[in-house]
Amino acid sequence: MNISKHTFRYPFSERVQNLTSSDIRELMKYAIQPGFISLAGGMPNNHLFPVDEVEKIYHRLPRREKEISFQYGPTTGYPPLIEVLKQYMESKGIPMDDHELMITTGSLQAIYIFTYLLAGKGDSILTENPSFIGSLTLFQSFGIRMRGIGLDRHGLIPEQLENQTREARITGENLKFLYIIPNFHNPAGIIYNKERRVRVLDYLEREKIMLLEDDPYNELYFDEEDREMTRPILAMAPPSLRRQIVYVGSFSKILGPGFRLGWMLVPKEMYRYAELLKQSLDACSPNLSQIIANAFVRQGYMEDYLKRIRPEYKLRRDLMLRVMKTHFPPEVTYVEPKGGFYIWVELPEGIDAREILERTIPEKVVFVLGKSFDPSGQSVNKFRLAFSNVDTADIEPAVRIIGNAIREVLAKK
Amino acid sequence: MNISKHTFRYPFSERVQNLTSSDIRELMKYAIQPGFISLAGGMPNNHLFPVDEVEKIYHRLPRREKEISFQYGPTTGYPPLIEVLKQYMESKGIPMDDHELMITTGSLQAIYIFTYLLAGKGDSILTENPSFIGSLTLFQSFGIRMRGIGLDRHGLIPEQLENQTREARITGENLKFLYIIPNFHNPAGIIYNKERRVRVLDYLEREKIMLLEDDPYNELYFDEEDREMTRPILAMAPPSLRRQIVYVGSFSKILGPGFRLGWMLVPKEMYRYAELLKQSLDACSPNLSQIIANAFVRQGYMEDYLKRIRPEYKLRRDLMLRVMKTHFPPEVTYVEPKGGFYIWVELPEGIDAREILERTIPEKVVFVLGKSFDPSGQSVNKFRLAFSNVDTADIEPAVRIIGNAIREVLAKK
Repeated sequence: MNISKHTFRYPFSERVQNLTSSDIRELMKYAIQPGFISLAGGMPNNHLFPVDEVEKIYHRLPRREKEISFQYGPTTGYPPLIEVLKQYMESKGIPMDDHELMITTGSLQAIYIFTYLLAGKGDSILTENPSFIGSLTLFQSFGIRMRGIGLDRHGLIPEQLENQTREARITGENLKFLYIIPNFHNPAGIIYNKERRVRVLDYLEREKIMLLEDDPYNELYFDEEDREMTRPILAMAPPSLRRQIVYVGSFSKILGPGFRLGWMLVPKEMYRYAELLKQSLDACSPNLSQIIANAFVRQGYMEDYLKRIRPEYKLRRDLMLRVMKTHFPPEVTYVEPKGGFYIWVELPEGIDAREILERTIPEKVVFVLGKSFDPSGQSVNKFRLAFSNVDTADIEPAVRIIGNAIREVLAKK
Repeated sequence: MNISKHTFRYPFSERVQNLTSSDIRELMKYAIQPGFISLAGGMPNNHLFPVDEVEKIYHRLPRREKEISFQYGPTTGYPPLIEVLKQYMESKGIPMDDHELMITTGSLQAIYIFTYLLAGKGDSILTENPSFIGSLTLFQSFGIRMRGIGLDRHGLIPEQLENQTREARITGENLKFLYIIPNFHNPAGIIYNKERRVRVLDYLEREKIMLLEDDPYNELYFDEEDREMTRPILAMAPPSLRRQIVYVGSFSKILGPGFRLGWMLVPKEMYRYAELLKQSLDACSPNLSQIIANAFVRQGYMEDYLKRIRPEYKLRRDLMLRVMKTHFPPEVTYVEPKGGFYIWVELPEGIDAREILERTIPEKVVFVLGKSFDPSGQSVNKFRLAFSNVDTADIEPAVRIIGNAIREVLAKK
């Protein structure tokens, strides 16, 4: 066997140049090593999944439904699941008159489909800065130019939205859409207040631009009184604006990412294309997952499950904030999240979070650098702590180690 | 609510023009209506899925593995499943020195990834004619020009391969790859003999072109003596050619399409790009499916299952051929398949299969027109009968109805 003789040149298409790697993959190698405490992964807690419930649900299904769970299904999704999700969306205040609901293989596929249909190489979009790394990588894979809009504790900063839009218009860019995560933002941990949501709607009306509303953490509020705040922007939109909004939901945080199930509300004018594209992406989403998810929602398990996990995540947030107050120096700032998985930490200007990570890795503690979440890859003095998939007993030692590293780095300056 | 006031113009990207619908979707609406006998769907039999085995397997898994089945997994797949599939591929005679194995969300995703990395709008590829409709639609969605190579009972017709290649070279086309389904072809039902497989390898060597070997029906031979014929082309390739071949496998026919699991053997030079692209497509394939599939293979259930289903599909083929001999007029020709799901039927020149379908639909019998499987959409005198997902008792009446329709149409000419 003589492989070195092989001189074949792969005829790659040009678009492979847009496929680039992110730091986060490197980091996840540490995260799964034994002995490491990971505050890196943006994932639900392994020990909180409704494992027993799902096994019971599946066992009780009629034989016919079990057989269907092994079979191909319609490209747009398992019809009973579509129906129950429509009702669920209506219960969130979204009238289902202007959209069709399509099941996707994870909500990332929904974002892929949306992007594919609307934007191509050289087009521009607006995203929050910071934003979800998976989406940023996806946008990049299309060769799309991203304009970042900064966030404060109440949502995107309206002045930056205006400025970025004006600049894009001046340079003649093809501005295709605005992408935001209004509830329990990844990585920023914030939730948009009502005023900022209205601002986004005003913007859509004025600029005639599309909105991609990514809402995977919608149900993960920690206090009942904050529930009302999670109302989707699509639910607040006047009828004339609804068709400019694509809403994306996910089962990853309300059942499990391993099911790879998301859904998207697609304006009727886009739906046919979305379906045709999905036919080429994977023909249909897993029926096994869909049939379980359908029973999980219809039989009331989802609501029970959410009631069980909200206090669990709240507990972890409380613990994390408490020890951060003890161990982090006062120069460090962060917003206390009202839901979700994340605390976004800001260091004083001029401090590089990488220096801190370099000190915590030998101590077997990892988290994600803010740089990964910046569409322009510039911000250096921020990092994300995920409290979702960590044992409660590990929170204090991990935060202490990070706090010590911060003090050491600050002392050097 | 005044929707008609909405004048928003969707800023679709140019590429949506390549997304086109196929007749087969229309047809599937009939196929699922009660009372219809469908010979249309290219799918396993609903009643043959290993439903009980899978439930037992899952129940016995250690708690930790069940928890992981709910969680995100690595983009390239669940490592133990990758390992056991590598061993399986080696058992098929494929040395795993030149390729990495990546799990995909159905084998269609593998074909999407392969195509994305290599070919773009305006490029040309070579496919069999007829070929798998899912792949043809996918290629079309990329705006790729397809050159069809006819099939006889032993595989693609070498002269047509040469001619199409020569023509493409003369017109200066960018010829990116050859796509074939060598075992129990969908829709043609044939299997490549050894000579044709060697011809394909000679062609790869001479033309320095890539091969996409799509092999979902590999295990579905009906007679033990035909097993040797199913040997993948990649397994026959000399080391110098292996890296020109991407092999695609699927769990859809050996476990169930509802799991959405396929795999691809990616040459090491392509692997990084394949992984990066999959990160944007769906982040990872369903862990729930992967963990079940892993146990299914490792605990020996797959082999038992295949031993159980081969005679079932063989029985259906035998039944179908027997009644075709009785009910079809002698002008109709077809190849008797040695495995898989399909019989490809050819009518005399000038007879339009659509006329036959139009007569069988009112009698509640459906099948798929050959036109759908033709990359140029021209062939009219062919159709596909799938015997896989039909009750044995329905085979005779369905074939009788089709046979009568054929006789009626022939009589008109």
